[in-house]
Amino acid sequence: MPFKPTNLKGTRDFSPIQMAQRKYMKNIISRSFGQFGFQPIETPSFERREFLEGLYGEEAETLIFKILNSGHKVHKADIKAFGEGNFSKFISSISEKALRYDLTIPLSRYVAQHRNQITFPFRRYQIQPVWRADRPQYGRLQEFVQCDADIIGPKSILNEIDMLLLMGMIFNRLGVKKLTAKINHRLVLEELINSIGAQPLFDQIVIHLDKIDKIGISQVMTKLSAIGLDKVQLRKIEHFVESPDELANLSNCSSIVDNALKELKHIKSQYEKLTTSIDLKIIIDPQLARGLNYYTGMVTEVISDDFDSIGSIAAGGRYDNLTAKFGLSNVSGMGISLGFDRIQLLMEQQGIFPKDISQNTQILMLNFGNPYIDLVQVWAQNLRSKGKSVEVYPSQAKLSKQLTYANNLQIGTVILYGPDEEKKKEVVVKYMKSRNQVSIGIDELITHIESER
Amino acid sequence: MPFKPTNLKGTRDFSPIQMAQRKYMKNIISRSFGQFGFQPIETPSFERREFLEGLYGEEAETLIFKILNSGHKVHKADIKAFGEGNFSKFISSISEKALRYDLTIPLSRYVAQHRNQITFPFRRYQIQPVWRADRPQYGRLQEFVQCDADIIGPKSILNEIDMLLLMGMIFNRLGVKKLTAKINHRLVLEELINSIGAQPLFDQIVIHLDKIDKIGISQVMTKLSAIGLDKVQLRKIEHFVESPDELANLSNCSSIVDNALKELKHIKSQYEKLTTSIDLKIIIDPQLARGLNYYTGMVTEVISDDFDSIGSIAAGGRYDNLTAKFGLSNVSGMGISLGFDRIQLLMEQQGIFPKDISQNTQILMLNFGNPYIDLVQVWAQNLRSKGKSVEVYPSQAKLSKQLTYANNLQIGTVILYGPDEEKKKEVVVKYMKSRNQVSIGIDELITHIESER
Repeated sequence: MPFKPTNLKGTRDFSPIQMAQRKYMKNIISRSFGQFGFQPIETPSFERREFLEGLYGEEAETLIFKILNSGHKVHKADIKAFGEGNFSKFISSISEKALRYDLTIPLSRYVAQHRNQITFPFRRYQIQPVWRADRPQYGRLQEFVQCDADIIGPKSILNEIDMLLLMGMIFNRLGVKKLTAKINHRLVLEELINSIGAQPLFDQIVIHLDKIDKIGISQVMTKLSAIGLDKVQLRKIEHFVESPDELANLSNCSSIVDNALKELKHIKSQYEKLTTSIDLKIIIDPQLARGLNYYTGMVTEVISDDFDSIGSIAAGGRYDNLTAKFGLSNVSGMGISLGFDRIQLLMEQQGIFPKDISQNTQILMLNFGNPYIDLVQVWAQNLRSKGKSVEVYPSQAKLSKQLTYANNLQIGTVILYGPDEEKKKEVVVKYMKSRNQVSIGIDELITHIESER
Repeated sequence: MPFKPTNLKGTRDFSPIQMAQRKYMKNIISRSFGQFGFQPIETPSFERREFLEGLYGEEAETLIFKILNSGHKVHKADIKAFGEGNFSKFISSISEKALRYDLTIPLSRYVAQHRNQITFPFRRYQIQPVWRADRPQYGRLQEFVQCDADIIGPKSILNEIDMLLLMGMIFNRLGVKKLTAKINHRLVLEELINSIGAQPLFDQIVIHLDKIDKIGISQVMTKLSAIGLDKVQLRKIEHFVESPDELANLSNCSSIVDNALKELKHIKSQYEKLTTSIDLKIIIDPQLARGLNYYTGMVTEVISDDFDSIGSIAAGGRYDNLTAKFGLSNVSGMGISLGFDRIQLLMEQQGIFPKDISQNTQILMLNFGNPYIDLVQVWAQNLRSKGKSVEVYPSQAKLSKQLTYANNLQIGTVILYGPDEEKKKEVVVKYMKSRNQVSIGIDELITHIESER
């Protein structure tokens, strides 16, 4: 019984047309990264499982894909732990590796490991897939590509500004319209949560607040109540979330918040002064949370004004001391991450990919079998060496079938050399679009084709 | 206690210099693929585990990385099977997905799944990592990139020739010298094994023969004896392996072998007539086996004459009906796979990467703090919009430190705008290589920089 051929839920196949779109995007993104001084690196798909744990937050960690130990190692499964319901211990006994969940932790490991070869501040970019065992839905895949740029070194507000300018440049060049980058500062949320006396619940509250857009304020309130916030605390949070305009009242309470807000305003005004992009506007959104635990300063999230159902298409923030986990202290980082697959989806929806980005074969040599094919192969190789893309139809199929092939693959030029042509020492060059054709002498074929564009 | 930052055994980090080498290689390889009419696709990193089983051969299958089921699914572990020592059943109960082992099976799944959108013969290329739980050693990684080109459709000897020409073009453009492509036909081995009456052991014998280069003939003989071959059979195999020249005797016995050998000779002579590469020579090697079960016709393997310890750097062959597993019959395939990482290793050893393939930042704007930095940022953005790559040093560090940074990263041009320059309404442009510098008016900076190359 054959298998039904399907790709796994939450993963995608990419056809040649989609690949052409992705290449187009990748070129623009990596060129822009390069123009801001970022250098490319890549890290392995899997890391030691412990490296990925303890930094993203509890909920995120359940979404990390673990790899089963190979060979005899699986015999060491801790069945006792399984029996006791200690699944985390059971998993530890059969899995040492995990697929990367983002590109930030691997970067931290990379920086700590190669610190002696790196000149700081280290500006690197990285375009690679990440994996999350999330429930697949529109715009949410289990395998997706992130495009990250990070600056690792001393703190500087210039980095925050650079990152926003960089995003502006990229989206501008991609032609994505009507975007908003929300920015906030982790200290604003910290101060809010301190002010209601819920400091120990900080991580959990932030993760729940991050879901307001997804599940709505009332469900978030239910969740916050479930983790132990009382009515007064909930009312204050709700008030803050629903009237972010009254942030001023909050900010009066605290010079920390005041400074954080000043910083955000400075970033926003510098961005507006310097950017050439009119389609990425910045708003300060005091309720923006971001779901990852490691952020410590400015956080940002880019959404499409028209297609917000797709979720954020880029995000990032300032994180301090992430490399401390690997023994390198007093280093700060500021990074952004573009959601490559969501941006592609958005660009498809907005219909902004240029026409003709597919690189079709230029020339198809038809196959009239022996002995004609020998000469045809010589021409094909010759034209390839002159930079043309050339296929020889592999079998002596009916002429109509071979021409249909050329049509379907949008191959512009077809070359015929069979018994009739051999007699006349000619070749027929047929142009599929105009349906014109010309006969030319066999010795002039290469120069003739070369002279076309 | 911080973790020691290391990448997992059998995986690699790629630094910006290595990334530049890889980009250089990838451009040449994908351009050459395109010139032979291959179109790019990509498939997900993981597939259903069963899809990958039953096609590579038993030994290879133990090297497939399995992914642990997420969340509560792991609670369904079949502990009874574990207790009974039925590890394969135990693994099935906790793992539905596996990382791809090569790009050929995913292609078969892709072709069967999307058959209605595909025009056959389907020429696709795919450049993606694959994963094998092999013991890591020199030239053998657990994660490595394969560059595959395959033609799926009716059989045609032109495809075999195309593939060899394509490899010749790629290695020629990469500049890799002194390579040998061994070719053989599966039918030769089949006939050998039939002639000694060991047909039921075909798959196992082939896998062992494939290891002659790795472990030597005597160890292979021991293995073959262990799977049940008797002394007479072993002697015949040994004789065949040690005197492939006497293949003629064998080929006299069988018109099948005779035809297979004729085909190989035709392929070789066509290749030699058509190729422009002098550094990839073809030899017919009747003992070449290839470790994968799915091959049915010509097989090939490319090795470096100077660095054969690295193993084969490319390989491929003809396979029939691989898509039958997914319900699509009577389709043949011919494909090659380039080992990207081994080729990079070889090119590093041969020292043939061009100099200056790294794309360094062109211009570093030094940081003299406020208020100078505001204008500097404007210039930086302006120059970027004109295509230059520009960094602003993020903090007001000592001048010497900022210049060291430029030196280490081989940034060619440095721009200084501090208190002295402000007074004179000038900017200093410093060329790091020649150590020359010029002062120019602030209004002329952009045109000055633009005019340089």
